[in-house]
Amino acid sequence: MALGEERMLDYNVTWRLDKFFTTWKLNRGLSVVDSYKLLKEGKELTDEEIFLASALGWCIEWLQAYFLVLDDIMDGSHTRRGQPCWFRLPKIGMIAVNDGILLRNHIPRILKKHFRGKPYYVDLLDLFNEVEFQTASGQMIDLITTIEGEKDLTKYSLPLHRRIVQYKTAYYSFYLPVACALLMAGKNLDDHIDVKNILIEMGVYFQVQDDYLDCFGTPEVIGKVILELILKILSAPWLVVKAMERCNEEQKKLLIENYGKEDPACVAKVKELYNTIDLQGAFVEYENESYGKLIKSIEAHPSKAIQALLKSFLAKIYKRQK
Amino acid sequence: MALGEERMLDYNVTWRLDKFFTTWKLNRGLSVVDSYKLLKEGKELTDEEIFLASALGWCIEWLQAYFLVLDDIMDGSHTRRGQPCWFRLPKIGMIAVNDGILLRNHIPRILKKHFRGKPYYVDLLDLFNEVEFQTASGQMIDLITTIEGEKDLTKYSLPLHRRIVQYKTAYYSFYLPVACALLMAGKNLDDHIDVKNILIEMGVYFQVQDDYLDCFGTPEVIGKVILELILKILSAPWLVVKAMERCNEEQKKLLIENYGKEDPACVAKVKELYNTIDLQGAFVEYENESYGKLIKSIEAHPSKAIQALLKSFLAKIYKRQK
Repeated sequence: MALGEERMLDYNVTWRLDKFFTTWKLNRGLSVVDSYKLLKEGKELTDEEIFLASALGWCIEWLQAYFLVLDDIMDGSHTRRGQPCWFRLPKIGMIAVNDGILLRNHIPRILKKHFRGKPYYVDLLDLFNEVEFQTASGQMIDLITTIEGEKDLTKYSLPLHRRIVQYKTAYYSFYLPVACALLMAGKNLDDHIDVKNILIEMGVYFQVQDDYLDCFGTPEVIGKVILELILKILSAPWLVVKAMERCNEEQKKLLIENYGKEDPACVAKVKELYNTIDLQGAFVEYENESYGKLIKSIEAHPSKAIQALLKSFLAKIYKRQK
Repeated sequence: MALGEERMLDYNVTWRLDKFFTTWKLNRGLSVVDSYKLLKEGKELTDEEIFLASALGWCIEWLQAYFLVLDDIMDGSHTRRGQPCWFRLPKIGMIAVNDGILLRNHIPRILKKHFRGKPYYVDLLDLFNEVEFQTASGQMIDLITTIEGEKDLTKYSLPLHRRIVQYKTAYYSFYLPVACALLMAGKNLDDHIDVKNILIEMGVYFQVQDDYLDCFGTPEVIGKVILELILKILSAPWLVVKAMERCNEEQKKLLIENYGKEDPACVAKVKELYNTIDLQGAFVEYENESYGKLIKSIEAHPSKAIQALLKSFLAKIYKRQK
C-alpha cells in the first residue's frame, strides 16, 4: 500500500471510528455482528464468527466511504462532518475519483481473503455487486432529478423521493448488513425477500427522519455545525416535497421563491412556512403510520429470530432525536 | 434503463463499434472469441460458446469504457477519439463520475445473467475484481507520478514507467481476454501464471509502441487528429524517459525546458532532439529485444494450443504501423 493511499484510507474510512458509538448512522458495520448474534438466538459466538462478521461490517463501511468520496465530488460539496471533503484537499482534486475506486476495490479483496473457502462466498460477491448497482442507480435518479428539480420544484413528488431514497440509501444501509448476517448463518437470500422489503421500508423511514431532524432537530441534539445545518435545510427533500403537497397556491409560490437559496432570510421564510403548514405534525403522522406498518409486517414473519432482529433495528431508529 | 443512461452507453461503449475492425486497440472484446477458438484447437465452436465468449468480450469493452470515462475526468482531457469527452458535454459534468460507476456495474450483471450456473462463475468474478484493482492501482501510481513528475522529470525512470503500464494497461488489455478464454475452456488460472507473465510483457511492449507511434507515426497512418497528436507527443512517457537516459547534460537541460509545453515551437524542439539522439533507433532495438524474449518465453510453454494463442497475439502487434 502506497503512503498516499494509507493517508487517504485514514481520512475517508477510519476517522469515522471516533464517532462510532455516538451516532447510529455510523453503525452500519457493527450491525452485521448484532444481526448475526440475533440470528444465532443467544448462542455464544466463536472468535472466528465475530471476526468474520466484523470483516463484513468493515466492507460496508468501505462501501460507504467510496460512495461518500464520489458523491461529494458530484454534488460539489465543501464539508463532510466538519472536515473538508477529501477532493477539496490540496493536491487531491480529481485524483479523489480514483481514490474512491480504490476504496471500492478493497471490498472484493477483503472478501476473497477471508471468505474464499466458504460455501456462501459467491453469494457475498453477488450481494455486494447487487447493492452497489442499486446505490449507483439511486444516485443516477437523484442527479437527474436535481437537474430537473432546479427548474421546477413541482416535478419532485413523494413517490420519486421514495424511489431515490430506497435505491440510494436503504439498500446498502439497511438491507446489506442483515443480508450479510443471513448469508453467514447459511440462509438463502432468495427465501428472504420479505425481510429485504421490510428493511427497505425501514431505510426510507430512517431517511425521512434524517431530513426532519436536519430541519427541526436542534443543533445541540444532532451535533452538527450550524452552516452545515443551514445547507441541509436547503436540501432536505422529504420536507419540501411534503410541503408542496400541503401548501395552497399562495404558499407554493412563496416556497418556490425562497427554497434552495443560501440567503438566511430565505431560509427563515422557508422554516416559517414549514411551521405554518404544520410540517412537524405531518412528520409525526408519517412516523406513526410507518411504525404501525413496519410492526405489522415484522410480526407476520414466520421466524422469531428474524422478528427479533428486525425489531431491534426498528427500536434503534424509532422516534430517535439524533 | 433510463433514457439518459441509454444515451450515455451509446456514447461511451457502442460508438466504438464503428472503428471496431480498423484499430487493434478496439479488439479487446473480440480477442476473447479468438483466444477461445485457439484453445479449442480448431474444433468448431457451438453457438452458445460463441455467444458466451462474446458476452465476456463485451464485459471487457464495458470495463474499458468505465476506465476511460473516469480517466478523462481525472486528466482533465478535452477529446477522446475526435469527440468531446463525455464529462465535457452540456449538462453532464461531474455526473459522469456516476455514469462511469454505472458502466462498471453492468459487468457483474452480465456475468450473473449468463454465467451464474457455470462452474467457473466465481472465478470470473474474482478475475474481473483482480483486474479492476490492478488497473486502479496503476492509475494511482500514474497520477502520483504525474504530480511529482511535473516538478522533476529526472524522477520518472524506465522501471517506474514499466510499472505504471503493466498495472494500468497490460492487465486488462492483454491478460484479461485470454484469462476469460482460459476459464471458459475449464482451465485453472493459478496453473497459468506463466501465460499471465508473457501477456503482461506483451502489454508493456504494446504500450511502448503506442508512445512511439504517437510521436513518429504519421497522422495519416494512425488516423489521429493533429491537435490530439501534439498533445500525445507531450505525454508519451516512454519516449521522454528513454530520451532522458540517452541525453548528455546539455540535451537534458533542453528537454526539461521544452517538454510538456503546448507551444508548437517547444514541441518541435523536443521532436528534433528525439531525432538527434536517435530515439527511433532506440525503439527498434527495444522492439527486437522484446520480440526475442517473448518468442523465447512462448516457445518454452508446454501446451501447443497456448503457444499458438500467444503467438497470434504477438503477430497482431509486432511491428504494427498503427
